[in-house]
Amino acid sequence: SCKTSCDSISTQCLLVPLLGTTEQSLTPPFSYSSTLMRSPLSHLFSRLNRSSSLTAFAVARDDEEEKELRQRFMAPPVSGLRELRRRRRELRSRMELLIMETQAEMCRALADLDPGASFAIDSWERKEGGGGISCVLQDGEVFEKAGVNVSVVSGLLSEEAARQMRSRGKSLKAKDGKLPFCAMGVSSVIHPKNPHVPTMHFNYRYFEIEEADGTKQWWFGGGTDLTPTYLNEEDAIHFHKTLKEACDKHDLKLYPKYKKWCDDYFYIKHRGERRGIGGIFFDDMNSPSKEEVFQFVKSCAKAVVPCYIPIVKKHCHDSFTPEEKLWQQLRRGRYVEFNLLYDRGTKFGLLTPGSRIESILMSLPLTARWEYMHNPPESSKEAEILEVLRNPKDWVH
Amino acid sequence: SCKTSCDSISTQCLLVPLLGTTEQSLTPPFSYSSTLMRSPLSHLFSRLNRSSSLTAFAVARDDEEEKELRQRFMAPPVSGLRELRRRRRELRSRMELLIMETQAEMCRALADLDPGASFAIDSWERKEGGGGISCVLQDGEVFEKAGVNVSVVSGLLSEEAARQMRSRGKSLKAKDGKLPFCAMGVSSVIHPKNPHVPTMHFNYRYFEIEEADGTKQWWFGGGTDLTPTYLNEEDAIHFHKTLKEACDKHDLKLYPKYKKWCDDYFYIKHRGERRGIGGIFFDDMNSPSKEEVFQFVKSCAKAVVPCYIPIVKKHCHDSFTPEEKLWQQLRRGRYVEFNLLYDRGTKFGLLTPGSRIESILMSLPLTARWEYMHNPPESSKEAEILEVLRNPKDWVH
Repeated sequence: SCKTSCDSISTQCLLVPLLGTTEQSLTPPFSYSSTLMRSPLSHLFSRLNRSSSLTAFAVARDDEEEKELRQRFMAPPVSGLRELRRRRRELRSRMELLIMETQAEMCRALADLDPGASFAIDSWERKEGGGGISCVLQDGEVFEKAGVNVSVVSGLLSEEAARQMRSRGKSLKAKDGKLPFCAMGVSSVIHPKNPHVPTMHFNYRYFEIEEADGTKQWWFGGGTDLTPTYLNEEDAIHFHKTLKEACDKHDLKLYPKYKKWCDDYFYIKHRGERRGIGGIFFDDMNSPSKEEVFQFVKSCAKAVVPCYIPIVKKHCHDSFTPEEKLWQQLRRGRYVEFNLLYDRGTKFGLLTPGSRIESILMSLPLTARWEYMHNPPESSKEAEILEVLRNPKDWVH
Repeated sequence: SCKTSCDSISTQCLLVPLLGTTEQSLTPPFSYSSTLMRSPLSHLFSRLNRSSSLTAFAVARDDEEEKELRQRFMAPPVSGLRELRRRRRELRSRMELLIMETQAEMCRALADLDPGASFAIDSWERKEGGGGISCVLQDGEVFEKAGVNVSVVSGLLSEEAARQMRSRGKSLKAKDGKLPFCAMGVSSVIHPKNPHVPTMHFNYRYFEIEEADGTKQWWFGGGTDLTPTYLNEEDAIHFHKTLKEACDKHDLKLYPKYKKWCDDYFYIKHRGERRGIGGIFFDDMNSPSKEEVFQFVKSCAKAVVPCYIPIVKKHCHDSFTPEEKLWQQLRRGRYVEFNLLYDRGTKFGLLTPGSRIESILMSLPLTARWEYMHNPPESSKEAEILEVLRNPKDWVH
């Protein structure tokens, strides 16, 4: 539906809410339309005004449609509900609904746990078509910063971008040097306040690209991973077990493969540490069939809330010391190091002209700390988690 | 004196305390010898034990030499005082003394302003020869985190590294694919507590490389720049004026050229902002002559304390509000973004196997903050500094 040129793109582009793509649009403010609401989540929809700048609302032309929108999503879908219904059999429509539902499920679960917190919902557009919805809860009782972002973009890949694809093992034949593509995803980072509640990240994305002869290449990517400040083996087992169960429904080989991929990807090379205790991570997934991979991704997306929310509930009222809070802040520093130095989605996004910086950097914690030569004493609880970050463990068999 | 291979190096390598260079040595703990002292600076030298692990102390074989060491430097020079005396006419000896003196001058000025703060002094070695001295004051009364680092490394450049050189405009002819090099520098980042005292960074470095036919290529690089939380025009003028005077003694063209280079280098592209209000920055400087460039670098290094310390003295007892502290923390976040995403020295260092991570990352602030969609109100003091970061000003003419 929307066609724009994009100078450089990768499969992780889905993490990246692209806006314009012209070199001129480097300087803020960005040209997106946004509606910012700071109120308890339960009141959000009743406060949405029909004439608000959430332009996709224009698609909801009758009361019934608008009612459905309000029940199912945080904001109207980027492609419009009517359009999604029209092409409801297409995988990209089903995927857009899935990422919208996943966003809403997560946001509602967060709001239930932190009812007094204010939630910002930004619906933003690309001038050329497509856009995204960013939901961010900041400085709540339970959550320090929690963001859940959806983006749906499409357009034309440049030859440069196509070359990047090829280096990832995909051979693509472009027509006139351009390849139509469609990219969408949901991504989220949750940083809780209490150092006994771990940080969680997930991201599920879908990519479609059309070659000169009309052949469509497609693949899925994604993952869910946990970053605790302190190790709690019971939580680690619950988290990995829930993911394994989601994977095992589809193929017993998936969990071990994607668990290892996760440990390898979230590696802070200069520290010799993983970012957290892992989970699953995968990319370029395009077999056995589009339908089967979609069903797998759906299982993973549906597992996010049961993976994580019980752990938050269990620990969000745990008492903690100032020293434990300090250690959490130092671990937040490592999180920043990974995201700014190594994360492909973040780096790609920030270096791409016209991307929506605020949605990309919502993954950063509210606060972080760096101490020179901080080394926890041997046999401390701090050394215990470091050991696991240096030598990842298998939590379920 | 020491020869090692280095897989990848740039002129900014001098910011980077290299250790081993083998791929295996990626995982901490690092194999450096260190002496860590936490006491008021005035007592540091009296507490240095002759049999300490500051191995270079072995060079000081008589009491007089040891006394001189204690008076002039934070720790014994990497190359040893006797060796430096033996080859005292060589530029690299004079440069090593200059960076050692600059380190001591800065550390003493900091300690005078923050007499109760503890100072950590780490002398570290490369297995293959060379090493460095890191001085870090953390969580003082006046300074949140202040680091002054010296490193002196030499060895062999790989062909890969030589290729990097060439892309920087240097054509180098290697013998058997290897080029002997020598690199040294002093670098420092000072993060004060009070939001009315700006952060300051400086770095001065020297690079020497020997080609197959015995020709020696050499160049200097460096700079001094200021990052205020709030704009104080008087301070900005004092800072730039002091730098301009240091430059003008050598060539009237230098200050305008290096002022602009500084604004261009410290650019946070995805934000459309400079990191701070600039200063000077230069690289690959190798004319009119080695002696003249050294004298220029010496003037710059001697200007660091008069540039900055009066500003600290003037504001370190200013009162501030919690909101001002918050804005400082957000600006610290931008500092982290620049250093991890764009700074060539930091990136090069972290991605080089065997580098001393703690010395590289001492540039990061103790604490930082990221808020989603933080936009200061128009005409606020916060908007005032943003304006200058987006559109750099000329502070002196």
